[in-house]
Amino acid sequence: MSERPATLRDVAAAARVHPATASRALNPETRLLVSEDTARRVTQAARRLGHRPNPVARSLRTRRSNTVGVLIPDLNNPLFPPIVRGLEDRLSAAGYVALLGNTDADPGRERTLFEQMRARHVDGFALATATLQDPLLAEAAAADVPVVLMNRLAPEYGFPSVSADNEQGARMAVSHLALMGHSAIAHIAGPQEASTGVERLLGFRDGMAAHGLDVDEDLVIRARKYTVDEGIRCCRELLAVGRAFTAITAANDMLAVGCYAALDDAGRRCPDDISVIGFNDMPFIDRLRPPLSTVRFPHYQLGTEAAELLLAQISGTAGPAGVRYLQPELVVRGSTTELVLTSSERASARHRSGS
Amino acid sequence: MSERPATLRDVAAAARVHPATASRALNPETRLLVSEDTARRVTQAARRLGHRPNPVARSLRTRRSNTVGVLIPDLNNPLFPPIVRGLEDRLSAAGYVALLGNTDADPGRERTLFEQMRARHVDGFALATATLQDPLLAEAAAADVPVVLMNRLAPEYGFPSVSADNEQGARMAVSHLALMGHSAIAHIAGPQEASTGVERLLGFRDGMAAHGLDVDEDLVIRARKYTVDEGIRCCRELLAVGRAFTAITAANDMLAVGCYAALDDAGRRCPDDISVIGFNDMPFIDRLRPPLSTVRFPHYQLGTEAAELLLAQISGTAGPAGVRYLQPELVVRGSTTELVLTSSERASARHRSGS
Repeated sequence: MSERPATLRDVAAAARVHPATASRALNPETRLLVSEDTARRVTQAARRLGHRPNPVARSLRTRRSNTVGVLIPDLNNPLFPPIVRGLEDRLSAAGYVALLGNTDADPGRERTLFEQMRARHVDGFALATATLQDPLLAEAAAADVPVVLMNRLAPEYGFPSVSADNEQGARMAVSHLALMGHSAIAHIAGPQEASTGVERLLGFRDGMAAHGLDVDEDLVIRARKYTVDEGIRCCRELLAVGRAFTAITAANDMLAVGCYAALDDAGRRCPDDISVIGFNDMPFIDRLRPPLSTVRFPHYQLGTEAAELLLAQISGTAGPAGVRYLQPELVVRGSTTELVLTSSERASARHRSGS
Repeated sequence: MSERPATLRDVAAAARVHPATASRALNPETRLLVSEDTARRVTQAARRLGHRPNPVARSLRTRRSNTVGVLIPDLNNPLFPPIVRGLEDRLSAAGYVALLGNTDADPGRERTLFEQMRARHVDGFALATATLQDPLLAEAAAADVPVVLMNRLAPEYGFPSVSADNEQGARMAVSHLALMGHSAIAHIAGPQEASTGVERLLGFRDGMAAHGLDVDEDLVIRARKYTVDEGIRCCRELLAVGRAFTAITAANDMLAVGCYAALDDAGRRCPDDISVIGFNDMPFIDRLRPPLSTVRFPHYQLGTEAAELLLAQISGTAGPAGVRYLQPELVVRGSTTELVLTSSERASARHRSGS
């Protein structure tokens, strides 16, 4: 490589085009404005001459860095890798690079990462905050920087948001069980500081009502976290209530995996004695025995749509902020089964469901 | 917030220190050079005044951005989240921010991401390339930028590298099986374009030799990818060979999960008929039935150590480049079991192992 880096002007000369044309051809966001042939000639010349655009200098002029900050609680939570992957795919196609930070839902760490990223002039943030009352949201609102929320709603700030339709998903889980004859259905709710926990519990109640089933409040247990250990604790608590139930809807797959372990310990078989359904369709959940029935959540699509909403905000072409809901999908596997009733149980169930 | 952002000089005045002291106090890399009390006073003043250091301007002067590029094949591969998490934790503690890119091992995408990140003046790269002969390595060497490799070796380029001791791990898997009486042990090898695939196969051969066991070449099947589907294919191929074997060492957990499915289909029970051991200790692998015995790979530590090696290179305090090997750990669960032999089989096994 030569001492002096090749400039845009050098590239334009080599490709026999105007420097403005060369600039458009080299910018992924404007490449479609020039012909395919021109774009190819310019990018080949740029590569041959070792030209690299200088976004740092441009960022100082325009305050645009073509980078985006992505803050998530913890990449080790299997929800997030496909979301981040979707974001990164879409951002990189638009010439943007993603800065990634794990906050552990710790306000100090969130603040530090947010400031570190702002100091690098990110053009916007994609945030998956862990709780409904996250101080980061107030800070982001005060900073007046483009923000998109992922799988969390915060209507008071007016940020656009992409979320799965959690209520609908929980209704689908209940409906699936009710249609197989279950009526005594328990719910292990997610943490009620998280909007997913609140919405899935709402959906559970709604689904029960839609099938004319009563919610037994003793059979609704709230997990403190979305972990296998909390699933074990909550399922043990359910079994200790001493009330008969034939199915559990868990607010996520981790909690459902915990149910497997607790049922095993108690000598109860899934699905023969108790049906279990999760939420999310995590990787490998289909490899458990029995393979877990669950509600699939389009993680990757959530990432790509969040990226699109954010890019639209950055370029000033965004519509009014709102929530884009992605539709969940019921995935029936081996952990849920038809309830086999005695004839008197059947009569009583028919009576309860009003049919 | 005021119109004009607070400058370093404003912060220094408010904290009653020299601007150079304020600068040191605000830079995570030099904070230890000032007293704790001074550091606190300056950071409080900076926060109160809404001062943000301007690393973009500094980067233009010094060509330092305090950002690092992280390129991995695919975040959806469960190996990578804990590695990236380890990297990010260590980098963020040093005031660095991580740019993340997924390459899909596609040379075009690798090149684009590498260039996009270089154009943002990253101070270095942490690379987990997918294959031994990756063109990205030549490009990185030509670019003369600090690089650390993760879980891949490339001795010809002299990059420092952090890797699990894959040979040692594979020896441990064989040893575990041999000590439980297995002698007819199959191996599903990883892709031989990846150093992990090569090293684990070497370790398998080495472990067999150490226990006086012959490797039956018909019982060594090479997977094309580290996927469940390839595990199924390879295990079917093993069963079709028509040679008796009592155990499979798989080059990673995905391949082992594939073995579960193929054995199930063939009506063979694990571990009663065939013991299976994996490599990596992926999340949830302990929830399978039977829970998978495997070789644990310290993913998170690999990330933190890679970050440390890279930071040392960037600051010019790195020692000579070499490979830092992390020790794997045998995790015995329910998928491997003692071989129950007839007395004549036992005599012949004793004879073979020379004891």
